[in-house]
Amino acid sequence: MQDKPTSTELLEAIQDFLMKEIMPTVKDKDLLSFKTLISWNMLGVIIREIKQEEPLLAKEFSSIIPLLGEKEKNLLSQNPKLSNFNLNSPDLSELSLIEKKEILLKANELLAKTIREEKILPSNKEVYHHIMETLKDKLSISNPRYGL
Amino acid sequence: MQDKPTSTELLEAIQDFLMKEIMPTVKDKDLLSFKTLISWNMLGVIIREIKQEEPLLAKEFSSIIPLLGEKEKNLLSQNPKLSNFNLNSPDLSELSLIEKKEILLKANELLAKTIREEKILPSNKEVYHHIMETLKDKLSISNPRYGL
Repeated sequence: MQDKPTSTELLEAIQDFLMKEIMPTVKDKDLLSFKTLISWNMLGVIIREIKQEEPLLAKEFSSIIPLLGEKEKNLLSQNPKLSNFNLNSPDLSELSLIEKKEILLKANELLAKTIREEKILPSNKEVYHHIMETLKDKLSISNPRYGL
Repeated sequence: MQDKPTSTELLEAIQDFLMKEIMPTVKDKDLLSFKTLISWNMLGVIIREIKQEEPLLAKEFSSIIPLLGEKEKNLLSQNPKLSNFNLNSPDLSELSLIEKKEILLKANELLAKTIREEKILPSNKEVYHHIMETLKDKLSISNPRYGL
């Protein structure tokens, strides 16, 4: 484990440096000011992602799996990482963050394919609810003000 | 799960921006140049930490627990998060990253206390080996060149 300061404390310090020291220096250069603000904003996104990533991954996973059909669950379980998992009561805890993301990406691809091929409409409440909730969670990391 | 780009890709882009666009702009200002380089370097540390954090946490945990005495293990297991754990064959997989770090910090405090109170010397091979390996892993994240 890395000693203090934590990664989020370091990122906050770099945010401060960009806003308080770089911004005044580049204030006459529009493009540099803009890119500095973008960098400052992206650091905030990453700080929020580091802090909230794990619970949101678990929430998205437990919400997406029940929406997949048997065929899609079979495809997903072909991932060697998932061979020990019962996808009807999935437990992600033994996977690393990188593995969780890889599997969730695949699950999303399978859900998107199902939506296209079976022409699932927004009137399908389960699918609509999952997509809206996941979108809100993503946006709350991109910009907390979207959550208002 | 956040969509592409990943947090490490964003951090690399900010590194590029600092080095290629901010550095030339502040090159006549020693203090700002210095702080820009520090920020660039810290972003590299954080990128390496994000990529390697989980396996290094698991390695440190499995290496530190056998060094603790029964009294220390008892103190550690008073943490409500660890109440279901058998510290003689600990399995961290059900904990979140934040919980893992919290417990590892406590385990380190207990080991440091033991070293002080029992006057454990560097000639104690198990403790020396653990501390050297953990230090090397920390430094490999701070600066990969230390590993050479």
